Amino acid sequence: MRIESMKTIGIIGLGLIGGSMAVDLRRRGFAGEIIGVEAEPVNAAAALKMGLVDRIVDLKECVQESDVVIVAVPVGAATGLLPQVLDWFSVFAQRDGDCKKVVMDVCSTKEQLASCVNGHPFRNRYVSTHPMAGTEYSGPWAAMAGLFDGHACIICAAEDSAPDAVRMAEDIYDTLNMRVIYMEPSAHDVHAAYVSHISHITSFALALTVLEKEKDEKHIFDLASGGFSSTVRLAKSSPDMWTPILSQNKDNVLHVMDTYIEKMQAFRQAIAEGNEAQVRDLIEEANRIRRIIR
Amino acid sequence: MRIESMKTIGIIGLGLIGGSMAVDLRRRGFAGEIIGVEAEPVNAAAALKMGLVDRIVDLKECVQESDVVIVAVPVGAATGLLPQVLDWFSVFAQRDGDCKKVVMDVCSTKEQLASCVNGHPFRNRYVSTHPMAGTEYSGPWAAMAGLFDGHACIICAAEDSAPDAVRMAEDIYDTLNMRVIYMEPSAHDVHAAYVSHISHITSFALALTVLEKEKDEKHIFDLASGGFSSTVRLAKSSPDMWTPILSQNKDNVLHVMDTYIEKMQAFRQAIAEGNEAQVRDLIEEANRIRRIIR
Repeated sequence: MRIESMKTIGIIGLGLIGGSMAVDLRRRGFAGEIIGVEAEPVNAAAALKMGLVDRIVDLKECVQESDVVIVAVPVGAATGLLPQVLDWFSVFAQRDGDCKKVVMDVCSTKEQLASCVNGHPFRNRYVSTHPMAGTEYSGPWAAMAGLFDGHACIICAAEDSAPDAVRMAEDIYDTLNMRVIYMEPSAHDVHAAYVSHISHITSFALALTVLEKEKDEKHIFDLASGGFSSTVRLAKSSPDMWTPILSQNKDNVLHVMDTYIEKMQAFRQAIAEGNEAQVRDLIEEANRIRRIIR
Repeated sequence: MRIESMKTIGIIGLGLIGGSMAVDLRRRGFAGEIIGVEAEPVNAAAALKMGLVDRIVDLKECVQESDVVIVAVPVGAATGLLPQVLDWFSVFAQRDGDCKKVVMDVCSTKEQLASCVNGHPFRNRYVSTHPMAGTEYSGPWAAMAGLFDGHACIICAAEDSAPDAVRMAEDIYDTLNMRVIYMEPSAHDVHAAYVSHISHITSFALALTVLEKEKDEKHIFDLASGGFSSTVRLAKSSPDMWTPILSQNKDNVLHVMDTYIEKMQAFRQAIAEGNEAQVRDLIEEANRIRRIIR
């Protein structure tokens, strides 16, 4: 930890991620004041009442008063917001002679966001990050202590950010007990498609399948075992968050989906042919995941 | 609970399910002695040393000495074993005048097993059951206390079993804290395909996809979040158990897989076309699972 004094943190988007960061940055003494920007009035009022933030402010005030601005809105909105934040940095720099504030985002796709700010005169005050933790719930009421503990956080294109800005992001993720990994935005988006985005799509498709076929929801409720629940859990995830992710990471996601559909077809064929040896081979091959996932 | 005295329980197959039943039937006072049949010598020795069973015996001794025989082997082996147990019931009935022993299986598909014993003179001493609980682990070392608590157990074709035999099965599942649901074998197999078997196939396919695409396993390990882990968890499941399930429930499973592949294709098309409204609709539709799965 290299924290010199408690920081004023501005969080734009007080949902699961922004809210959970607020909880741990406050209770672990990193944040002095936490101020928030939230477009949904009900969510803003709730975040305030829950004590996630000390004040709700507008974007300009948030940037003006914060040492660090965390952009924690769905990635579709972030592509618009992030350049605005950097523009305010320019304005304040002109007024004050310089601007040493930091802005970081926490979105699940990184390449398109990077392209929105590359070339901006204050690009090096921005740190591109993706804390890989979450639940299937959303909104400030989903915020929880300890959400990030032990998970990985990716920092992308660190060489495009000022060293002190990267250090600030590292301090924040250190406070959140995350393991920081460094990666290029394009590599991040490929890996995220494999180990995160496809999982959500397979869960959505599973929910759609079961909901269509099991007309009597009581049967699903009665019969759902732990296995089904864990496989379908991500299907509860927010469309506000996931629609722009799948859109922005379209090429990688489609590529992984094609491989996935091929694997399903191979399974289908082996079962249809009554080829038990082949079914067994496929399951044994899949079992290799045991070595990797505890 | 309608237990008159502690029973001698014979368990054929000392794996996750058989072993976990042994743990709870003993500690909750239902079982007096528990004897086991186990084809794998290492597993048999472990089950004995772990105290899951009091003795390892052969099939004939098991049937001879037990009040209740629980067939807890993979369903491929159960179709051979179950008629053998009923044949021993015939032998003992001839010798003793009658046989009031009970045999039940705990397999995940029910129709093919039913057809193996229908018409057997001791068919009504058999109760077809499916306790819908488990983990992705197998073997006696996977046995755990409380595995079944709060889950559903299906009893199939209860009208083909003697009332006292059904009552015995109900007492056992009552002891295991399960909710008993009654269903025909064919209906069971349809519902099991939707809420259990397809979940396993989607996990296997997900593991195969990620293992093929992420050549560097360290990346999977580093980046796997809770979401990926929960979605891929079932891919660790045993091929010994799952190969015969997918084989015996082939028609239902193929039908559900076809619907699932259609849903994946619909998702793929919406993403490929950049149709965010359609992606959002699909996610919102999938979100309906929230109402059913906590």
